[in-house]
Amino acid sequence: MEFSEIGEFGFIERFRPLFESLNGAGTCGIGDDCAVMPFGDEDLLVTTDMLLENTHFLRAGISPYDLGWKTLAVNLSDVAAMGGTPVASFLSVGIPSGIGVEYMDEFMRGYRDLSSLYRVSLAGGDTTRATGENALLALNVAVVGRSPHGAAIMRGGARPGDAVCVTGTLGDSAAGLEMIIAAGGNITSSTRTAGFPGSAASLLEKHWRPRPRVEEALALAATGAVRSMMDISDGVASDLKHILKASGVSARVDIDALPLSAPLKEYAAATGTDAVAMALGGGEDYELLFTAGEKDAERIAAEAAVKITRIGTVTEGESGIVRWCRGGEEIKDDYMGFDHFGARRRNRK
Amino acid sequence: MEFSEIGEFGFIERFRPLFESLNGAGTCGIGDDCAVMPFGDEDLLVTTDMLLENTHFLRAGISPYDLGWKTLAVNLSDVAAMGGTPVASFLSVGIPSGIGVEYMDEFMRGYRDLSSLYRVSLAGGDTTRATGENALLALNVAVVGRSPHGAAIMRGGARPGDAVCVTGTLGDSAAGLEMIIAAGGNITSSTRTAGFPGSAASLLEKHWRPRPRVEEALALAATGAVRSMMDISDGVASDLKHILKASGVSARVDIDALPLSAPLKEYAAATGTDAVAMALGGGEDYELLFTAGEKDAERIAAEAAVKITRIGTVTEGESGIVRWCRGGEEIKDDYMGFDHFGARRRNRK
Repeated sequence: MEFSEIGEFGFIERFRPLFESLNGAGTCGIGDDCAVMPFGDEDLLVTTDMLLENTHFLRAGISPYDLGWKTLAVNLSDVAAMGGTPVASFLSVGIPSGIGVEYMDEFMRGYRDLSSLYRVSLAGGDTTRATGENALLALNVAVVGRSPHGAAIMRGGARPGDAVCVTGTLGDSAAGLEMIIAAGGNITSSTRTAGFPGSAASLLEKHWRPRPRVEEALALAATGAVRSMMDISDGVASDLKHILKASGVSARVDIDALPLSAPLKEYAAATGTDAVAMALGGGEDYELLFTAGEKDAERIAAEAAVKITRIGTVTEGESGIVRWCRGGEEIKDDYMGFDHFGARRRNRK
Repeated sequence: MEFSEIGEFGFIERFRPLFESLNGAGTCGIGDDCAVMPFGDEDLLVTTDMLLENTHFLRAGISPYDLGWKTLAVNLSDVAAMGGTPVASFLSVGIPSGIGVEYMDEFMRGYRDLSSLYRVSLAGGDTTRATGENALLALNVAVVGRSPHGAAIMRGGARPGDAVCVTGTLGDSAAGLEMIIAAGGNITSSTRTAGFPGSAASLLEKHWRPRPRVEEALALAATGAVRSMMDISDGVASDLKHILKASGVSARVDIDALPLSAPLKEYAAATGTDAVAMALGGGEDYELLFTAGEKDAERIAAEAAVKITRIGTVTEGESGIVRWCRGGEEIKDDYMGFDHFGARRRNRK
């Protein structure tokens, strides 16, 4: 059987039951941004992400510095998504013969600069050769973090009536990726300013060097009012469904309310592409998606250092269903996120 | 610059200083089998290993069940090497299009059966496609473990006069690998009994399905007398040097004392290969290498449930140097372990 028939989550469901009897007391494993394990008087958070050349990045499309940055960023974002504090990272690299020491020096410089920003140590890893003429660069990062016992914000806490909110703007990273693909994969960060207007450069920046919302998530967690949270990595359309399924609820999302940046709107207008499709299904935003009671959400948005936008409402009803509204009317589209083994987002008006 | 010029450890030394200022108080990071981090009133242990097709395994040379087993085993062995208790694992898989769901089902079955043996939960991971016609299977595991605060056994505690000891026998896994390579990579565990005498099957078994020495390491740690310890993954010749360098000492090793299994001796005699070279430089034994005071070592060996063999003595002198002795005489050979970017073991009499 091909993986495209069952998808990433179908595969996970095949082996998850085999491991259920091994879950320790209080451990929350597969199915959230991080595993949460009681450890001493705190909770230990652990997350891991694999990045493979040609699947997750094109070597011609990102500088080694930015690749190092981004490889860590996607993992720090998972710790942020729990409202936790990242502590240490573990980096595995499989290096093919076409990559020299200087490339990896630059990679480590980018990795270090983001590590410094959040005071995350590099506490271990694995360095190995990727053998074979066609071997590709393989990267894996694991990050451990900490959280006061019971304080981690899971996906399963959303309740009917909650406001659905996001930080920042959505779709910029997807537009940056489209620009790179349109250029045949031949833009790297070292040539990032060449031939692009300022607004385009900001889309590329968001794609190449995402800022995980670590401090913003800690501030959200400190309000005590956030009921569910995750980071937006596959696109908010797909990611919101994870919160809804975990919480056993539905949601209504107002497409007109989506926070779109001026550069994204400019890009969409200039190229005739669909900014909304990029915002909903594009992925790699690494913004936070969370729910909170209506009044709490208003207060949180007013007091937050980061832009927070309410995009919808949690409703009762079939678990995991999103109803999309535009101009107050429900529309019959189903924006899809990124699934590593199957469907890609639909990109239509 | 090519990685073969500087090797795995040369690369690590290039970036290690960049990260030093980020190390937290009490954290011991790069350079031991696991990172050790104070967490609550305990120590958290973390290790990670990447396994790449054609670098670490040939898909034709191991069954998916055994590959799943071994992928976890090499990481559990690192936790054992600290005298710690493994708690949870995190598995990343990058799956190329040539691998179907049934293959990964078998992989997960092997991974689960070893998880069950040591009650280690699968607490998370990442499942992704490896894109491209020539893409290869990429695996990464991270394991977290626990240890009473300050109790983890590091590499740096060896003292002059200590006995150098190993568990089990050495070189069996290397002989199993040689058999697989000699067969053109076309032996898998499902055909393991075909055409091999019983003793050969035990060498293959050791290569395909290593048993990490988790309980044995906990028992060694409980004696309170083990001064330094690591697991043997690259070959004892190479691995012992890590203990010696970390401890600032030398050692004398008696080659005649090496524990060689009857199947290994039979295999070497039948094929005209060098059992000692396989025992010293072959790697993937996943036995424990440790040092303890002479009297303590005798007591430990007498009381242990596992076979323990003293192979040498820690001495004063230049850090990291091993003097090899045979028939009481020092010999001028330098058995090398596996370095992922450079030298392979020498295989000569």
